[in-house]
Amino acid sequence: MARASLRESLIEAAVERFHAHGYAATGVKDITDAAGAPKGSFYNHFASKEALAIVALERYGASRRLEMLSDASVAPLARVRRHFEFLRDENLDAGFTRGCMVGDIAVEVADHSEPVRAAVHQSFTSWRDALAQAISDAQRSGEVSKAQDGATLASFVLNAWEGVLIATRTDRSAKPFESFFTVVFGVVLR
Amino acid sequence: MARASLRESLIEAAVERFHAHGYAATGVKDITDAAGAPKGSFYNHFASKEALAIVALERYGASRRLEMLSDASVAPLARVRRHFEFLRDENLDAGFTRGCMVGDIAVEVADHSEPVRAAVHQSFTSWRDALAQAISDAQRSGEVSKAQDGATLASFVLNAWEGVLIATRTDRSAKPFESFFTVVFGVVLR
Repeated sequence: MARASLRESLIEAAVERFHAHGYAATGVKDITDAAGAPKGSFYNHFASKEALAIVALERYGASRRLEMLSDASVAPLARVRRHFEFLRDENLDAGFTRGCMVGDIAVEVADHSEPVRAAVHQSFTSWRDALAQAISDAQRSGEVSKAQDGATLASFVLNAWEGVLIATRTDRSAKPFESFFTVVFGVVLR
Repeated sequence: MARASLRESLIEAAVERFHAHGYAATGVKDITDAAGAPKGSFYNHFASKEALAIVALERYGASRRLEMLSDASVAPLARVRRHFEFLRDENLDAGFTRGCMVGDIAVEVADHSEPVRAAVHQSFTSWRDALAQAISDAQRSGEVSKAQDGATLASFVLNAWEGVLIATRTDRSAKPFESFFTVVFGVVLR
């Protein structure tokens, strides 16, 4: 019988390795080594690296603090700003390395694995829905114009964020964050 | 003496393979096979896969039609729109697969190779500068508000585009393009 704690260690190691090194560059042995497990034990827990990636995406998604976007104790637009500040600060702590693990896996794997593409899609959909709800709340409270649909604005802002994380690791600079906050909160969500 | 035409074939094969399959998933042998060349011939032309990636990035960048952004026969804002329509149509032709090869290589390699990161940075900088020039022209002609700096708007729009290409391959849909055109030309560049 497989140990539950070893499964946990494999998931944590996968999130760390996929996020830091990418999907293709991470082999099953890299993951078992990082988890301190024999390579053969991997297949007691996961059918494939692809199957583990789907669980790793769920695990990473759960760390994105989507609940910030529905925190009724904070005004809707401030929720959106604080959520992206949280994500920005995480990237600053990583010294402008690493992107969004969901976006990174989308880039590498979405064209080549339908189950992984579906898991990435699910992750982005949950995020987009939570963001759309907060933006719609901000439209109802009068903080944001109703000229554009809340779901369209949410989709646009989410995608802009994913591109910002490509730019920060390319530029090794916080400037892409600055243009994001300036334009999103100064022009788009007005 | 190495044949110039073989070098060309290797570059073309690298652009195709990196774009379709990604950097880590493409081996030197995949490239030489695609170019119809013996594997050993690779090192007559390139010191490493990394060195070829830098040339492939330049080659791909040259296909991005940045000259559309400085075409004085077209009004500045229409240049920007037509440029992104060209890029969108290319993705539609690929059936929502493939992203921007520059962004894809940034995601996979920028954290792990300083020469590749620098080449990606150069590619994005050329694009951002051309876009900033067109947006500044649109600000001077009165098509776009001067409330935000042209370079900030260019950086924001470029990053938003990179994120859109993550979303289209994840969603297998043109909707991310629609939200981009709606918000960029309806809200951001106004």
